[in-house]
Parts: sequence; structure tokens; C-alpha cells
Amino acid sequence: MIVVMKPGCPREFIDDVIKRIEDLGYHAHPIYGIERTVIGCVGNEDKTPLQSLENMPGVENAFPILKPYKLAGREFHVEPSQVDISGFKVGGEKLALIAGPCSVESREQVLEIADAVKAAGAQFLRGGAFKPRTSPYAFQGLGEKGLEMLVEARDRTGLRIVTEIVNAEDLPGMVEAKVDLLQIGARNCQNYALLDAVGRSGLPVLLKRGISTLISEYLMAAEYILQHENYKVILCERGIRTFETATRFTLDLNAVPIIKQNSHLPLLVDPSHGTGQWRLVEPMARAAIAAGADGVIVEVHPNPKFALSDGAQSLKPEKFERLVSEVRKIAIAMGRSL
Amino acid sequence: MIVVMKPGCPREFIDDVIKRIEDLGYHAHPIYGIERTVIGCVGNEDKTPLQSLENMPGVENAFPILKPYKLAGREFHVEPSQVDISGFKVGGEKLALIAGPCSVESREQVLEIADAVKAAGAQFLRGGAFKPRTSPYAFQGLGEKGLEMLVEARDRTGLRIVTEIVNAEDLPGMVEAKVDLLQIGARNCQNYALLDAVGRSGLPVLLKRGISTLISEYLMAAEYILQHENYKVILCERGIRTFETATRFTLDLNAVPIIKQNSHLPLLVDPSHGTGQWRLVEPMARAAIAAGADGVIVEVHPNPKFALSDGAQSLKPEKFERLVSEVRKIAIAMGRSL
Amino acid sequence: MIVVMKPGCPREFIDDVIKRIEDLGYHAHPIYGIERTVIGCVGNEDKTPLQSLENMPGVENAFPILKPYKLAGREFHVEPSQVDISGFKVGGEKLALIAGPCSVESREQVLEIADAVKAAGAQFLRGGAFKPRTSPYAFQGLGEKGLEMLVEARDRTGLRIVTEIVNAEDLPGMVEAKVDLLQIGARNCQNYALLDAVGRSGLPVLLKRGISTLISEYLMAAEYILQHENYKVILCERGIRTFETATRFTLDLNAVPIIKQNSHLPLLVDPSHGTGQWRLVEPMARAAIAAGADGVIVEVHPNPKFALSDGAQSLKPEKFERLVSEVRKIAIAMGRSL
Amino acid sequence: MIVVMKPGCPREFIDDVIKRIEDLGYHAHPIYGIERTVIGCVGNEDKTPLQSLENMPGVENAFPILKPYKLAGREFHVEPSQVDISGFKVGGEKLALIAGPCSVESREQVLEIADAVKAAGAQFLRGGAFKPRTSPYAFQGLGEKGLEMLVEARDRTGLRIVTEIVNAEDLPGMVEAKVDLLQIGARNCQNYALLDAVGRSGLPVLLKRGISTLISEYLMAAEYILQHENYKVILCERGIRTFETATRFTLDLNAVPIIKQNSHLPLLVDPSHGTGQWRLVEPMARAAIAAGADGVIVEVHPNPKFALSDGAQSLKPEKFERLVSEVRKIAIAMGRSL
Repeated sequence: MIVVMKPGCPREFIDDVIKRIEDLGYHAHPIYGIERTVIGCVGNEDKTPLQSLENMPGVENAFPILKPYKLAGREFHVEPSQVDISGFKVGGEKLALIAGPCSVESREQVLEIADAVKAAGAQFLRGGAFKPRTSPYAFQGLGEKGLEMLVEARDRTGLRIVTEIVNAEDLPGMVEAKVDLLQIGARNCQNYALLDAVGRSGLPVLLKRGISTLISEYLMAAEYILQHENYKVILCERGIRTFETATRFTLDLNAVPIIKQNSHLPLLVDPSHGTGQWRLVEPMARAAIAAGADGVIVEVHPNPKFALSDGAQSLKPEKFERLVSEVRKIAIAMGRSL
Repeated sequence: MIVVMKPGCPREFIDDVIKRIEDLGYHAHPIYGIERTVIGCVGNEDKTPLQSLENMPGVENAFPILKPYKLAGREFHVEPSQVDISGFKVGGEKLALIAGPCSVESREQVLEIADAVKAAGAQFLRGGAFKPRTSPYAFQGLGEKGLEMLVEARDRTGLRIVTEIVNAEDLPGMVEAKVDLLQIGARNCQNYALLDAVGRSGLPVLLKRGISTLISEYLMAAEYILQHENYKVILCERGIRTFETATRFTLDLNAVPIIKQNSHLPLLVDPSHGTGQWRLVEPMARAAIAAGADGVIVEVHPNPKFALSDGAQSLKPEKFERLVSEVRKIAIAMGRSL
Repeated sequence: MIVVMKPGCPREFIDDVIKRIEDLGYHAHPIYGIERTVIGCVGNEDKTPLQSLENMPGVENAFPILKPYKLAGREFHVEPSQVDISGFKVGGEKLALIAGPCSVESREQVLEIADAVKAAGAQFLRGGAFKPRTSPYAFQGLGEKGLEMLVEARDRTGLRIVTEIVNAEDLPGMVEAKVDLLQIGARNCQNYALLDAVGRSGLPVLLKRGISTLISEYLMAAEYILQHENYKVILCERGIRTFETATRFTLDLNAVPIIKQNSHLPLLVDPSHGTGQWRLVEPMARAAIAAGADGVIVEVHPNPKFALSDGAQSLKPEKFERLVSEVRKIAIAMGRSL
Repeated sequence: MIVVMKPGCPREFIDDVIKRIEDLGYHAHPIYGIERTVIGCVGNEDKTPLQSLENMPGVENAFPILKPYKLAGREFHVEPSQVDISGFKVGGEKLALIAGPCSVESREQVLEIADAVKAAGAQFLRGGAFKPRTSPYAFQGLGEKGLEMLVEARDRTGLRIVTEIVNAEDLPGMVEAKVDLLQIGARNCQNYALLDAVGRSGLPVLLKRGISTLISEYLMAAEYILQHENYKVILCERGIRTFETATRFTLDLNAVPIIKQNSHLPLLVDPSHGTGQWRLVEPMARAAIAAGADGVIVEVHPNPKFALSDGAQSLKPEKFERLVSEVRKIAIAMGRSL
């Protein structure tokens, strides 16, 4: 923690701050400058109380110099992690490819898509059974029935299944269904009660970044899961909210190299939600891999114009096939495979 | 719903769209222009499937022309609502004044603040017993014990109590404690599972706007509570996330007249969280009332420099007293009282 | 400047940084911590080269601790400034009221509005003769002819005139017309060539904040004018660009108390451009004054539905009269007059 | 233009709007719905006055359905353009590579960098002689002398030179020096006086996107140049301002496929300014090409830690060489060359 005093602040204020730092169990190192004084606090920077120095008289500001996340950070775990999801190592040499409909709409739909994405090369099938919708009047998903359909699709194709959890009450059903990868969506990225529950469940988690979550906050959200010794956490950039209205969100690919530098966790990119437009999905999937992502998650629907949710951003199976073959070229250029 | 076709799109695409609109149970009204065709859909605009028109060949875009919220809107309820909270009408002529510490830290602290804010004119005591913190390592609140302290403060002062709920599991305790007003914080503004649970509980709710929630989405979040025939919903602007770093958030006072035009629900403003700096709390509280808000919610701490959370934005009791007297002048200029 | 070294960085990197700080003419004060070392630089913090420390091996980051603006800051000029514009002191007890059409459209229009806003209590007439429009195909203003009309309106009513300059080539005409207050619009807030030219002209300047200009950058933009010893600078908050689409811009009233704390310059607010909706102009004008602004600038048009630009945000004269009487109540509550 | 009337608005308001549409020379096509009426306007949608319909009584909103830009759009020019800059076709199969220092600092520096970037494969040398700096006290560039150094570097290496213009007064010097490509920086993206001047000069222009410029506004800014029949316009995404602080700006790669769909103009990406961190430059350069950009512009400095501006985002020559070889792999995967 560095405490910056105001210019011309009286000596007694400085002495008060030094005393308080020492009371909190740190060593205070004042630097008496020409215009102002700055005080360094040396010690184990875990404790919240240091932040309170900011409120003392004469203090202009106080800021931490250590990263606040530990388990998610590179300092804890220097090498990139590989997270094993039912035998597939996310974060390894081979890119992860998750595909499927936004919502599970019917048994026929999900089986048809499962076959198609399997054929195109996906290792994971995504599909929402419980949907968080902005409107209480919109289609909210098929619930338990939808989950059963995903399980059937897994039995038939061997694809691992990825589905969103929106309510801790649904956890037992998810555990029973042996969901391979539990998705926490953008709106729940900082729903700490849910993060805690999911962390305790021990199930692998795909944690999506919130639409206005700072990268530092995002890694802290992962920390909520990791602290329960549930280390199967995969991150996913899916677009942030900015002033630009040409895309539904602004897919933030800068987050890819930034997160890779600061965290050991594997990182996917969701170009479907991130842009909201199917025409942008392939170019942004290519760009995600070129930026260093460990895979992509893509919405596929056999008939997007009849999709009950997010049709505008869904690819038809044949467009998805094309995407895979284009992304594969980039993967190879990056020394990876797909 | 208005569907805009692409310039020069073939007649068969137009006919397909018209057919589909009719299939969905609407009347289609095409306007054949010089450069392009636009099709109006007339009917009850409730159904989601209309959005899917956007995915049909030849369609440039499709947009709704009705507001998506019903119970929160002015069309449902032309006159502004007053919400009775244990005998105090929020949204009435008298402004609501909620004050107290960010977190309940100890019995002494909460009783001291309760006495002080009561003396200064507050009708409500706020205090967090369950805290959603960005870091899992930060102080998470006293939990049940904190709730008991709030109840004791209510018994002593007669102040109504306002406290945050972060987990539906805590609802029974909140009901038992007869919490006067349940707060849903910014991070949970779109946590629909929690909104549903709280809506079903029938307890009055103070729903804070999320830091990146569009006003239209915010009113839809209120709709999640209202649909359970729980009409005791109070809104609260508390700052949005923008590029500006001089304040912790950008308190968005434009939301006050906009929400007042579009919704009948009462609306408070939280200048403490909204700015993150105690020096800005009083001027922004004055501005909130001048913009038309029905009251303010302010953080007060007897000793902000030792606060366990958010000290930088807390006022000392004497500064809070000054705020009340300054805000009262604005209230009177607005034809209201405090 | 504070330089934070990486955890575990080798001693030789630390020594290199210290040496370089000394070479640049500062004193280096290292604090050797448990996990990392922090180095304070003491001296006159004017020089850019210090920033370059950030690029040295072993450095995690480096940040300045002095505010970068001098002439615009409170440290240079502790008391708030009053800027005399042709006999009216902006920043004094009496609020400034600038009103008029977005664009000068005709002689009749400008004289009619001038009479109306004068009658309602304005001291300044605004009107654009040279308009910066997003589209090259939109109405670009009447140019010199428009300027003559403003001068005629001034002769007739005694109102001071405020008009925008978009091109340094127009300066001689502005000087000859004795424009009372030259406006630099949001798009040119960081057009340094124009700021320099206007600064050298000695004419009083109303400098609008850019739609994505940080407050610190905004005060630096003012500095470009002030450095030419042209101290007649008035600031104006006019809305920033955020994710919210319910308003055209987000009028950032937080900027009012923040700028008042950090700068001595007078500050107005433009609720017309800031919101883009005439219904929001009056409530936001009231809020601006309650937040501490020194006046408002409002668009008035006798017939907004025929306005050639920005009609949606213009008030009719009778609505403007009402605004003045409502804002006056707030002014009195704030101990000021209008 | 589509005009949406309010629900329950009286018939006379609807008739007034229809009359006004006809008066403006359009055909009005009303659609009388159950809850509200919508009116389509058919005709040549060039005229500004239509926007004024929004201000008429009973109108809820009015929005255009045609894209406002013509010369920059794909409708004008269906095939992608190639812009010939002194013999190199930007937008062709071969990617453009522009590299060099942020500022020209000395003759030795610029010649050294020119040799290095030439050797690594760049076809263009960038370097700022006139610098727009946030602070008037920061290094403002060497001016005319800097321009001479660039010319000398061109003579020596054959590299085309790219330099920024900040003031129309500097145009004659730029013309005389035969600058190959004139850069308009982000801050001047909507400085219409400068766009006009540069458009009239006939010199090729690299127009950078402003940090808060919507893509639609950006293409309108290009239109200001194109309307002078100066068709040598190259676009450049260089980062937008968002809430995220982990990067200096958020490089918006979504803009690449969006602009490619809507405009025929070639498009480069600047990962140096776009991220502000040299470690991110290579991954984001790769991603830019994978997203479909026609080249990149990169800051290179022999000794970033002594750079007079933007050192933190500059690459050393050897890191730049590595970048070229990595980007080349992506180029080949995309069917292009470098």
C-alpha cells in the first residue's frame, strides 16, 4: 500500500498516518518530498483495514501494490493450467470447441444439432435448459426436461455437455445428470452466493465474464470458486458493454493476452454472444484463436430464423463447418490443433 | 414490430416474411418504398417469435415498437405510486431518507449511528449484515448477528430497517426479523432467481440499478418482482460504470426524469455508492432531489477512517446533519418536505 | 512519481532504476519491502522523461503523484475565479443563463428568440453560425451571415453573444464581430491547434467537455488556452458517451463538484445537448444548479418541430420561461440568484 | 424514415404528421395498429428536415432506415477498394505494414529505426513530427525539422512515409515534402475543418477512428474527405474508450468485420495505441489480421525506455521482427502475404 499525502499537509497528519500504519502491524516508510510526502506500508498486504487509511485527514489517496487475487494468479501457479473435463484437457495443445443452441428447445432439435456439431469437430455440446432472460415474459427454458435431452444427446454422441446454472437450487439435478461443465453466465459473474455454491459442488465451471466486469474483478470472481479447492475453472470472454451500438456487445479480445499474462486459467472466447451477429462469428473466432485463446464457444441452430432465443447470432450447421475449417487454419498457424 | 428489408431484396423474400408474420398471428402491412420495403406487424406484441424475423433472408433488421415492461410502466399505472413501508409512504410529498453504515460492524456502532441518523431526520436505517464483496478475502458481514443488531436498533429508535439480501437462503431469516425493506444490490439486479424468490416473499424491495444495466433492462428486472403481485418495489439509481475514473462510478441523474416518465415506481438515489467519495455526497444528494428523486440513501459512519468497508464514501454524523439541512432547502424549493 | 518494481526482481534492476532517476535530476527513495521494492522520486515533477521509467526491466508500473495541470488547478488559484464577459461575472453570485437556437437559421428566427430569452431573464444569446455536423450533407450553418444576425440581435437586445468556432480561419471574423464568448464544442475539446489559436486571440472562451474526455484531460485542454495568458476560460459539462441509450448522452453532473474541487474556473452545464430530449432539460437544469454549477446553457427555438438541427432537445420560449422560474427556486435555495 | 406515434394519440396529431410528411415531399404510409399507429415515409431520404418529425405532438420517435453515408458505403462501391500509396496497394493481397517511432526524436533515431523496420519487412515508415499531446507541457514534436528527417529516411530506404497532421496550416509543408500518407489522429477524427482541408489537398489519408466514435460516425467522417473526390482514404481502428482499465484503450476488433461489411475502404489496425502495452502488440496484431484487417501499424523504438512519448507501447526492433514473422503465419492462413 502506498499512501500519498496532500501537498502542504501538516506534519501531525503525517505522524497520525504513520502511527496508524504501525498499529495495523505494518512498517511505515515515509518519503518526505519537496511538495508532498508519500508513505509506503511494508508487510503482508492481506488486510482490508489498510484501505481505511484513505479516509484519514491529510491523505490524498492510498492504493495497493499487490494483485488482490492469489489462486487465479500467475504468481500462485506460474505455468498455464490444463483443466481436464471428462478426459479432454482444456488449455492444452488442442483447442476446445463448444457448440450448440442457445436454448434446448426440443429433443429433435438438440439431437440434430449434437450430431451436426460432433461431425464438424466439436468436443462439447452447449445448450441452455434454464435460461436467464431479461424479460420474465420470454421463454425461460425447458428446465429439467431440457437437461434430460442434453444427457440423451451426450449418450448418443459422446459429446461432453455444457449448460448454465442460474439458481443454486438446481445444483443437485446438475450433479445427478453429471453435467460435464457448468456454465455461470455473464449476469451471474458476480453472484457470489452462486459462485460459492458451485465452488463447493466440485463440478467443473465455465465462468463467463460479466458485461461490465473489470478483468481484475473477473479474476476475483474466479477466486470465489477456487477458494473451495475446486480448481476446475475455465474463463470465457463474451463481450463487454460499451458505447458502440453496431454490435450487441464489444467482444474484448484484449482480455485474451491480458488474462493469459495474469492468470494460469484456460480461457475461451464466445464470439456469438460477444457480437450478437452471426456474420461476425467466424472472423471473431479466428481472431480469438490468433490472440491466444484456448478455444471458442459458438451458437449453432439448424434453423436460426425459428430459434426461441438469440437466433440472430446463431450459425447454421453448414456455416459452423466452414468456421471450423477456417479456425483450424489459424490454429495450425499458432502451433495448435483443432 | 417493424421489419426493414434490405435495399433491392427480391420480392420472394418479402413475401416469405409477410407469410411468416401472418402465420404467427399478426397482420402484415408492407410499405413498398423506392429503395426498400418496410413491413409493419399489427397485433398483440407479446410473443417472442417475432424477434426471429430478423433472421430471415432479405431482412436488414426488425425492432419492437412497444415497451417490453408492463407492470412497471406508466401505461399500466398512470399516476406515480406511493409504496407504504411500515407506515411511511415512499413516493409521497415527504422525501425518504435512508442512512446508516455500509456494514454492520458491532452493536455499539449500529446503535450509535441509529441514534445519530434518527436525530438528523432519517426515517430508515440501512446496514449490511450480509455483504457481497468483490474479494472472497474481504469482510463479508456479521450475518445473522448483524441482523439482530439492526432489529435492536429498530426497537430502540423506531427507524425502519433496510438490509441487503444476497442469497435466497437468507430469506426466512429476513422474514422472521420483519425487515422493513429488503435491498437487492447492484450486482444482483439481474439475478433472476433472487428476484423471483424475493418477489414471492411479498417483502418490500429496494431494487438497485446494476452498474451496466440499461434503464429498459432495469424496469424489466422490477417486472420480475412485480409479476408475483408484489407491488412494493422501490427503485434506486446508484451509479453506472463509464470511462471516467475521477469518480468510482458515474451517478446517472438523467435516469431520474427518464424513469419518472416511464414508470410509476418511486425512485431513490444513492450518492454514496454512486460517487465513491464523501465530498461529492452532499452536492449529488441535492442534485438528485432537484432532478425529482423521492429520497436519498446515504452512508454514515461515526468514524469513517476505521470503517470495514466503503469508508471513503461515508459521512460522519455531523456532515450528515449538514447534508440533511442542505437537502431540505432543495426539497422545499421543489415543493416537498424532509 | 512512484515506481513499483516486480516481486522478486533482481537487485541490479532496482539499482538501474535508481541510477536513472538520479540521472534525470531527481532523488530516488527506495523502500525495500517483503515482496517487492517501491521507489519514490523526489523533485520537480514537470518532466516527461520520468514516464519512461515504466519501460525499464523489472518495473511493474510507475505513476505520477502530482496533478498535471497547473494554471487550471486550485493549487495555482485557491479561490474560485469570476470571469468577466462584457460586464457580467460568470462564476459570481448571479447564475449565468445562456439561451438560444442550436443554429442561426434566419434573421427573423434569431431576433424572435433573442427577444424571448431576454424577456425570460437570459444574459447571453447562443446561436451557431458555423456548425460542426456529423454528416457533410447536413445543414452546416449560415456562416458569416449568421454571425451578422447575432450581432444585430445583440445590438437590439443588449444580450452578449456566444457562438461556436470550428476553424481557426474564422477567428478574424469573430474578433471583428466582437463575439462576447467563443464556444469550442465537444468535438474540438482536444483540437489543440484550435485551442492554441483561440488562446492567442485573447477572446473569452466557453470550452465544452468532449464526450469521452476524462476530467483530468479536460482541465489539460483548458491549460492549452490558459498558457497563452488568456484567463477568460469558462468550462461546460455537456454529456459523456456511455452504454446507456435512453438519453443521447449521459449528462455527468458528478463532474460539477469534482471540477469545483480541482479547478478555480467557472463551470456551466448544458442539459440540452447533455440529454438530447427537451423533457429532461428542466429537471437536469435544476439538478445542475443544485450540484453547484454557475449557470446553464439551454437550447430555445420558437418552433422546435421545424428546427434545422437538434429540434428534439430545444424548448419553446414558454417552456424556457417555466424553466427559468423553476431553476430560480433552486438558485435561491443554493444562496444564489438568477 | 419510420415515425412511431404514441399509443392512444389523437387522430388529428396523426393527420398533422401525415400532412407534414407530404409537405416535405415524401409519401406517407400510415399503418393503423391496435395500440398505435406507425407511419412510413417513402422518398429520397436525403433531407435533414425529416428528423424534425420527432418533435411533433403525438410522436414517440422517428428513425431513419437508410445508412447515412454514401461514398464510404458498400452500396456505392460493391467491391473492396485498393488504395495505391506510391505504388503499394493497400487493401490488396499483400498486407500493409507501417512501423516506426511515435515521435521523430532525432536524425539518428529515425534513420536507425527506418533501416530496422525496412529489414523486417515494413513498406511504410511512420513518425510524428507534429504531435498532439494531452499536456501543453509535453514534448510537441520537432515540427518541420522532423519532417525533413522523415524525408531523408525515405530517400535512404525507399520506405513510404506516414506522418500526422494536426493543423491545416501545416498542409503546404506536407505537400511540398510529398508525404506519402497523411495521418489524421483519433482526436481529430471529427475535426471537420481539418478533414475538409485534407480532402481538398488530394493527399492520401490514413484516418484513425476516434476513441468514442461510433462506426457509423466514423464512416461519415471518411465521407467528409471522400466528398472532395479524394478517394485515397484508408481507415484505422486504434482502440476505443471503455470502462476497462487493464488496457489503455480497448482495441475494438469487432470493428474490422463490421466495417468490411459496410464499407469498401481498406482498414488497418493499430495495436500499439489500441492497447498501450508492448506485450499485447503482437497477439493483437495477429488477431487483427485473423479478423480480416488489411495490415497493421506498429510503434517501434530502438530504446523504448528512453522514448519521449508512448515508450510503454513501443517494440524494440528485434521484437518487431518476431511480430512480423508471427503475423506472416496468420497472413498465410488467411490466404494473404506479408
